[in-house]
Amino acid sequence: MRNRFDAQLEQLHQKLIEMGNLCEQVISMTYKVLVDEDYEAARELIEKDSRIDLKERDIEGLCLKLLLQQQPVASDLRKVSAALKMITDMERIGDQAADIAEIILTSNIKAPGLDIPIGRMAEATVRMVTDSVNAYVWQDLDTAQKVIEYDDVVDNLFLEVKDLLIRQMDSDPEIHEHVMDILLIAKYYERIGDHATNISEWVEFSITGKHRGDENL
Amino acid sequence: MRNRFDAQLEQLHQKLIEMGNLCEQVISMTYKVLVDEDYEAARELIEKDSRIDLKERDIEGLCLKLLLQQQPVASDLRKVSAALKMITDMERIGDQAADIAEIILTSNIKAPGLDIPIGRMAEATVRMVTDSVNAYVWQDLDTAQKVIEYDDVVDNLFLEVKDLLIRQMDSDPEIHEHVMDILLIAKYYERIGDHATNISEWVEFSITGKHRGDENL
Repeated sequence: MRNRFDAQLEQLHQKLIEMGNLCEQVISMTYKVLVDEDYEAARELIEKDSRIDLKERDIEGLCLKLLLQQQPVASDLRKVSAALKMITDMERIGDQAADIAEIILTSNIKAPGLDIPIGRMAEATVRMVTDSVNAYVWQDLDTAQKVIEYDDVVDNLFLEVKDLLIRQMDSDPEIHEHVMDILLIAKYYERIGDHATNISEWVEFSITGKHRGDENL
Repeated sequence: MRNRFDAQLEQLHQKLIEMGNLCEQVISMTYKVLVDEDYEAARELIEKDSRIDLKERDIEGLCLKLLLQQQPVASDLRKVSAALKMITDMERIGDQAADIAEIILTSNIKAPGLDIPIGRMAEATVRMVTDSVNAYVWQDLDTAQKVIEYDDVVDNLFLEVKDLLIRQMDSDPEIHEHVMDILLIAKYYERIGDHATNISEWVEFSITGKHRGDENL
């Protein structure tokens, strides 16, 4: 029974890594779509988001099977329930990357000078996703906690973009609509950072049995 | 065993109704905070969001207990797994209402004429949440499908707010920062509508065994 559980857990890890990988790819692609105005990449991104949705249902099925067949307790139960939560956040990351691509496809965005902080947001969130999935697989508390702290960097980048946008609007009334779209895009990256943080909080829970959200309750 | 399952399912319904109720309250409160600049209500809202988080953990525990003890199959299993998904969306609704309150607390928002479409967004999303939770409890496919269709109304209200904001910016450069904040608030309502739609899609799944997200996969 234990061996079978371990084999299924190994399978779960593999699938989570694949799903995390797809999330990293779609986040990176948003930036490519934005900077290179690469509409082919935008379509590819939306197709990859469907694959992320498929992965979620697949992993969910595996987790439910694990719960029903193995009736795990203690840290094994925590690992499975943490995985169930993590995939919801990963699915949302895919959706938000697709939302970014859609804004870019339906508008003609030009926002001079904004590619730098937006690019840093994309880079930062890709790394947060990679690190949080690895932290789960290796049950590495230290990495999970670093991801959680790193979310402040992404939040600050969002405020930086917002300030830059306000200054650009003041100087150029022609770009009002672009500014709104860029603000929404930056907000999506900020939410992606929040989801990566959530994933790491579930990793922390799977290791320690404590969820930091509960401390404030 | 069946009686015990039914009793636990009844308990689950009760808790979901309570959680849905809290979600409706926080959405309504955001509008009160915005229009009346009622900071006391903002603090109360943030406290209620903590209670929503507590409810999520409580219901999650009940669902896992149901899965482990009763090992439900077919439609019973679908009901429990749908509930697990729905509470994630309800928790996000609480977060987004709190995010709206926070924007209002940290900025001094004035956006003349925008209270009407924003108020309609708040009203529409409250109703979507009520209807989707009721649809689950009564396993009422028709209501769930109406909620899903109604999301277009909220999406269109968001576009209406965005257009109004662009026009206001063109005529009054002084309000640039307010405009950004209002846009983000409208975006949060639009996301709340998406989450209510997700809930109804899970209700549909619990009844029919088919999730419409899967059709596109």
